Parts: sequence; structure tokens; C-alpha cells
Amino acid sequence: MTMTNHLADCCRLLTHGVYVIAVNAGVKRNAFTAAWVMQASFDPLLLVFSINPDHYSYELLRQGETCSINVLAHDQLDLAAHFSQPGITCDKMSLGAWETGRSGAPLLLDALVAFDCRVSHYCAAGDHVLVICQVIEARALRAGTPLLYSDTADLDGSRSLFPEKIDATITQ
Amino acid sequence: MTMTNHLADCCRLLTHGVYVIAVNAGVKRNAFTAAWVMQASFDPLLLVFSINPDHYSYELLRQGETCSINVLAHDQLDLAAHFSQPGITCDKMSLGAWETGRSGAPLLLDALVAFDCRVSHYCAAGDHVLVICQVIEARALRAGTPLLYSDTADLDGSRSLFPEKIDATITQ
Repeated sequence: MTMTNHLADCCRLLTHGVYVIAVNAGVKRNAFTAAWVMQASFDPLLLVFSINPDHYSYELLRQGETCSINVLAHDQLDLAAHFSQPGITCDKMSLGAWETGRSGAPLLLDALVAFDCRVSHYCAAGDHVLVICQVIEARALRAGTPLLYSDTADLDGSRSLFPEKIDATITQ
Repeated sequence: MTMTNHLADCCRLLTHGVYVIAVNAGVKRNAFTAAWVMQASFDPLLLVFSINPDHYSYELLRQGETCSINVLAHDQLDLAAHFSQPGITCDKMSLGAWETGRSGAPLLLDALVAFDCRVSHYCAAGDHVLVICQVIEARALRAGTPLLYSDTADLDGSRSLFPEKIDATITQ
């Protein structure tokens, strides 16, 4: 096991769910799979996610400043895989049932819960950007348990993205 | 079920782990239980957590600018409960095996993994503050699966903290 892989193994013990985040700028829409999502504040109710600013969705997000954060269920690995495809595919939004939320962002009706959000502000975070979002509506769509990122194996090929230079030690 | 409780139920489907975050300012040390923790960047390796700035630990954090983020295992609800006690108790750090990390922050050796961190920067987030931390060492301490926040029931009494004014709808 390389040191980098060991660091990835340590980080895999950070618990993340799996989400489809949808963005729009006018009629242009896109959606992507994300794991780095959490609650940040009770009142106002803020959620935060971390996004790679090189992605096309980030462009749309900065233009539209609205998004939906949709919680995937444990049996929706297919949706996670579909929306984790890189690049712009014209038919990416053809999978799933979508409805426009109050913010203007598309809500994924197949999810357990859809959070309709307006972007509050941004914060630089290394190779990503934190997006702090104010929830304007929370829609519970169906019963079920959430998909865990740790159950997706290396769906996104992220093991290679960890730095080599941090000491990761095993004492167990 | 009140609307507020429904909003809490929606947010419970956001997946969070359970962590003990330890801080220090010189010899003053404290630790608290947190769920709002996630990875934010691969390289540099950044973790982010959300903290209530009214807490004593926040004072120490701002002074010391170091912390450890320790991942609790599924069988460590006792540690989660201990470190979620509010206020300053002089013997709070007497539970658990602690070792000073390279940053100066105490590492909880009972955890699955201890991430030794220096604070990179802060970002306001409603009634909390986001703390963006650079990992300087990741120490895998024992095998096990992480405790999920959803398995702790309402350990922290947070159900009452959600705002009344957001629409939370049930369509299922």
C-alpha cells in the first residue's frame, strides 16, 4: 500500500453521503454527483458543499447562484454513477425526474429529499471551493436510507488525488 | 409532527459521522463532539468543520489555531456523549487516551483515525463558523467502522434548533 493510498484510507473513515447537486443559469442546467456536503448552520438553515471550480457546473452555479442538493438512497448507485460522468453531455439531465424549484434550480424527484437552495457565499478551499447555501425549501420525497460514499468503492477514481507529502501512519 | 421537526427529519438524511475535535491554546485544552465535518480539498488535504462560536472551544481554537479531528467508531457512543457535554468541566479531558500531536493539539488515541491539523482559515456560516483545516498528519489507530450521527438519536438535542420559517413539505 502506498502512502497516498493510506491517506485515502484514512479519509474514507470520514463519513460522507452521496448527493446529486443540480445547478442552472437560466435554461442551461447541469447536475453532478458530490459527497462533500454537510449542514453548516441551524438558523438560517445553511448547507455547504465543496466543488471543483474547473467543472462546468461551477460556471453555471456562479451565474445562476441557485442549486438543489438531492440526497440519494442506498439503492441509487446508478444515479450516482450517471451524474459523476465528467464533462458536458447534452443528455445528462435526461435521466431522473426533474421539477423546477422555487429558486429556479431543478429538483431531482427520485431523491430521498431535495433541498432547494440559493447560494449565500463562497469560500476558497485548496483545490476546491466551498459553496454555502441557504435552504429555501426542503422536500421529503420518499422513504429510505441514504447511500454512503464509503459504499460506492472508488466510483470517482479519487484515490489518486491525495497528496504524497503528508505523513499517514498506521499504529493499529 | 411540527414543521420544525419535519425539517430536522429532512436534515437527518444528510449523512454525517461523529467526531471528537480537540483544541488547545498552550496548555489549555478542550474537546467537543461534532458531526458537521467533511473533506474539502485533496491537495492540499483540507478538512472543514462547523463550530458554534459561542463555545469555549472556539476561543481556544482562535488562540491556538491547531486542532485534531478524531473519528469515532460505531461502538464509541459513550465518548460522543461525554464530549458533547456543554460548558467547561475541568476533568473533561480525563476520559480517553491523549497524546500531543505535531501541531500541539491533543490526539485522541481511542479514535479510528486522528487527523492532526493546523487551521488554515475561517468562514462565517449563519449561527456557526466554518473552520478550514490543513491536515499535517493522519494517524490510523485501529480497525472499525465509523459511528454515524444518525445512530446517535437526538444526543445533542438539536431538533429544537431548526428554524420555523422554512417550508418543509412531504410528498411521499
